[in-house]
Amino acid sequence: MFSPKFDELVQALRTLPSVGPKSAQRMALNLVMKNKIQAEILANALHNAVNSIRSCQKCHSLTEQDVCDICLSIERDDGLMCVVESPADVMAIEQTGSFRGKYYVLGGHLSPLDGIGPDDIGIPALMARLRQGTVQEVILATNATVEGQATAHYLLEACKHLPVKLTRIAQGVPQGGELEYVDSHTLGQAMHHRLQFK
Amino acid sequence: MFSPKFDELVQALRTLPSVGPKSAQRMALNLVMKNKIQAEILANALHNAVNSIRSCQKCHSLTEQDVCDICLSIERDDGLMCVVESPADVMAIEQTGSFRGKYYVLGGHLSPLDGIGPDDIGIPALMARLRQGTVQEVILATNATVEGQATAHYLLEACKHLPVKLTRIAQGVPQGGELEYVDSHTLGQAMHHRLQFK
Repeated sequence: MFSPKFDELVQALRTLPSVGPKSAQRMALNLVMKNKIQAEILANALHNAVNSIRSCQKCHSLTEQDVCDICLSIERDDGLMCVVESPADVMAIEQTGSFRGKYYVLGGHLSPLDGIGPDDIGIPALMARLRQGTVQEVILATNATVEGQATAHYLLEACKHLPVKLTRIAQGVPQGGELEYVDSHTLGQAMHHRLQFK
Repeated sequence: MFSPKFDELVQALRTLPSVGPKSAQRMALNLVMKNKIQAEILANALHNAVNSIRSCQKCHSLTEQDVCDICLSIERDDGLMCVVESPADVMAIEQTGSFRGKYYVLGGHLSPLDGIGPDDIGIPALMARLRQGTVQEVILATNATVEGQATAHYLLEACKHLPVKLTRIAQGVPQGGELEYVDSHTLGQAMHHRLQFK
């Protein structure tokens, strides 16, 4: 509205996830009026990031090198592999600090309606890697959504004949969750997979 | 987490208004994984915007020239001036399509506790402009917040001796508002300033 360059900035900001027209306008005004230095920092950060961050050749997570730090680490267990849908999931699991194995990022989930099959999410390459025999346990950590569950089940079937242990992350009541407000499927799973205390 | 450049991008995105750590991470992943071209477009838009957009010398709204299109327009009424707090308000009023005068952007509101006085929000320059005699009516369109109201009252007092008509935007029940849920001050104002139909 003020100028073509302002409108271009608003349009560019609108392509960010969960940024609508009002938020984009607010961000643009904030950057142009109060945060010019910050805007330049963001512009440079964007430019640098897209030009240096790529997919790890081994696990398909994100890295600035050919192979990511996690894949290269000799302190992490090569025999334990966690299969996730996206690099965001790697991040989430790393933040728990409770996993010391390696990852494999599918980059999505099976979705026949969208034409996304096993080849599109790197399952053949995963199978090839599992056949090498280093991995002893595969933790299927795809999302607990319908598509994530379907992908986990597909992998379970595909790995049946391989000499690897297959596990799936637990489903249950989240920390702080009140039973009254937990959905019945989750509560059913929590009851079914209850842990023995004594 | 993945790489220093990724972290820098997340940090830069976090400085945007209402973007928290999770949103920033989601935006960064989205840009790096799916929208590299879009990221470059955004980087360029940011760079172009901060380097060409500045304050209009006349109204202090935003423009790429010395004086903005609204101030330069000969189709708009020079005798009618709308005083607002920020360029975002100019945008909001322009979107209504119901105002054909000129604007004056204060760039904030009076806030003695934060040390913001009349000089900081360009009131002397506004008074000087009103003294030139072109403006016949000043519409005080500062926010209906405590600070916005105080700023409007200050301007009312300051302009008392000038031969200009002073008006304040109406307060009342918003479109679609249910009386039951409108706060009592607003409803009180709506009753007090009721419009005569017949």
